[in-house]
Amino acid sequence: MPDAIGYAAQSATSPLAPFHFQRREMRPNDVRISILYCGVCHSDLHQTRDDWKGTIYPCCPGHEIVGKVTAVGTQVSKVKAGDRVAVGCLVDSCMACDQCLKGEEQLCRNRSTGTYNGKDRITGEVTYGGYTDHIVVRDHFVLKVPDRLDMKRAAPLLCAGITTWSPLRKAKIGKGSRVGVAGLGGLGHMAVKLAVGMEADVTVITTSPSKEADARALGAHKVLIATDKAAMRAATSSFDLIIDTIPVPHPVMPYLHLLDVDGTLCIVGAIDQLPPFHSGLLLGQRRSITGSPIGGIRETQEMLDFCAEKNILPDCEMIDIQDINRAYERLLKADVKYRFVIDMASLAKEAKQAA
Amino acid sequence: MPDAIGYAAQSATSPLAPFHFQRREMRPNDVRISILYCGVCHSDLHQTRDDWKGTIYPCCPGHEIVGKVTAVGTQVSKVKAGDRVAVGCLVDSCMACDQCLKGEEQLCRNRSTGTYNGKDRITGEVTYGGYTDHIVVRDHFVLKVPDRLDMKRAAPLLCAGITTWSPLRKAKIGKGSRVGVAGLGGLGHMAVKLAVGMEADVTVITTSPSKEADARALGAHKVLIATDKAAMRAATSSFDLIIDTIPVPHPVMPYLHLLDVDGTLCIVGAIDQLPPFHSGLLLGQRRSITGSPIGGIRETQEMLDFCAEKNILPDCEMIDIQDINRAYERLLKADVKYRFVIDMASLAKEAKQAA
Repeated sequence: MPDAIGYAAQSATSPLAPFHFQRREMRPNDVRISILYCGVCHSDLHQTRDDWKGTIYPCCPGHEIVGKVTAVGTQVSKVKAGDRVAVGCLVDSCMACDQCLKGEEQLCRNRSTGTYNGKDRITGEVTYGGYTDHIVVRDHFVLKVPDRLDMKRAAPLLCAGITTWSPLRKAKIGKGSRVGVAGLGGLGHMAVKLAVGMEADVTVITTSPSKEADARALGAHKVLIATDKAAMRAATSSFDLIIDTIPVPHPVMPYLHLLDVDGTLCIVGAIDQLPPFHSGLLLGQRRSITGSPIGGIRETQEMLDFCAEKNILPDCEMIDIQDINRAYERLLKADVKYRFVIDMASLAKEAKQAA
Repeated sequence: MPDAIGYAAQSATSPLAPFHFQRREMRPNDVRISILYCGVCHSDLHQTRDDWKGTIYPCCPGHEIVGKVTAVGTQVSKVKAGDRVAVGCLVDSCMACDQCLKGEEQLCRNRSTGTYNGKDRITGEVTYGGYTDHIVVRDHFVLKVPDRLDMKRAAPLLCAGITTWSPLRKAKIGKGSRVGVAGLGGLGHMAVKLAVGMEADVTVITTSPSKEADARALGAHKVLIATDKAAMRAATSSFDLIIDTIPVPHPVMPYLHLLDVDGTLCIVGAIDQLPPFHSGLLLGQRRSITGSPIGGIRETQEMLDFCAEKNILPDCEMIDIQDINRAYERLLKADVKYRFVIDMASLAKEAKQAA
């Protein structure tokens, strides 16, 4: 009888439904984790609906995982049973290439293994994510959740948090840095909180005037309405970094104008065609456009520790796993502030039915 | 009677022809320079033909100027009569803003004054460039030409040299850095020589297989033919920096593919619309696209000193000023290896006629 239960999609068009399966045998360097909470990332929806092609069914998503260690392999010294831990978007990598050795496992030359829709490096089995009761993960890829961090709300840090943390750190954001955050969803709201925590001067750039109060409530110092031409003109050359979390294709020229000399527009939301723009916007002031994918294990741990120290937590709406399909529909309408988190205790209902 | 003679265009469609005019009175911080050589930059052609709009006629171009000091103002201590000097694309800036104070006069918040088609900050008079017998320039903007540098061939360093030097330095290129140079004209051939001088591993990326021998003669270690799909695929993720000197609009996706993790495509040639590209090329490996305009005075001096030390000089074809219109036609056909330089001694013929 399978030892794990979760929710999975059986095809691109079927809703997520209960799914019984077998987690792998514990290896000497494995950690078994009882999952308490799992965040709902927009990628989960894209992947289960095969928006990016290449989805393997059944697809059991979830890569913002928080839980407790229930068992460890014989070689594991990093954590022990009972420890509060987390797992993000990666569960393995080659651990031998230059990127892995630098702690940039997400950029592994031999392709890191995704927490779901990946393939186990040893058995080739498809990986299943965090919409489940438990998971077995190689020790190196297990993060520690500091005592001061609320387990319930920590989950979204594992993807939305690290995805915005990494470019903020790479740009050496600190006191007085002028940071813009374009888009105010799951990623955007984390970018605001983290940049404020880094003591930057933070501006939310949004096309929705209605989001101004929300932006300020999250800690943003200023709000720039992208449709207000005069305000946009007045803000020309006034940012060191803009984290662009807008999840759909959009023009970048208005944002490039906002960058000061040597400023950077970092795209973390839209994985799509960028519309044409004039290179003079780059040449004239040495502006850059770049992008950034999640982050490495070491920097993810640093981010968790920073959030614990500064008491930074995502704004979450808790849901039961049985509500997941409705949550996806609301996600498509951006109707969430700012991240759904599944309380895995709700899985108990399914387990009882199965028994 | 006007004290200066040069060649200027009287309109966007008229050829360059002799032009008599008056240089400004010497100010206390001014340096008067007898011009010996002046490089011919593609910008000269764009400006005289009003390709960028905003050209003021008569337009007397030239911003790759080498000569000897003939007089200095009472406050000048930087140079003295007889010194070997040079002037690049800038002849003034506010000298008070953050950029000027950082030595980035080219990015002056109050707009630096162009060597030609600019406006004098005090009198408002239009500036005239280096296709002339002499020039009067504020001391700060006068560069010293080291003794070991051949005056005749030094001129193109003042624009083609610094334009490629600045992004190479900003990217901290050094021993072992993997540098690509796209396009092999005036800028490209300098990028190759400078990057080789910095001990980088240098590859010329060109659509013309016929340029391979030239590229190697300039010191390039490898040549990558951009139309060879297999070679381009094999070179995926293999560059830290690509200096893109291609002077016309072109797709950037093939070059983005060539960049390794954290690699940068720096556009210095095409000031135009960039065609659409997929942001996944940036996100997947944190690649960047940026641009760079010339450089500041301090870094221009560093570049001249470096070239003297390493014996790096542009490949020049010397012409008389009377050949300038023919040279422009050849420039349009990229028929020059790699920079025309005007020998200003040829101006004597005009002066005699005028006398």
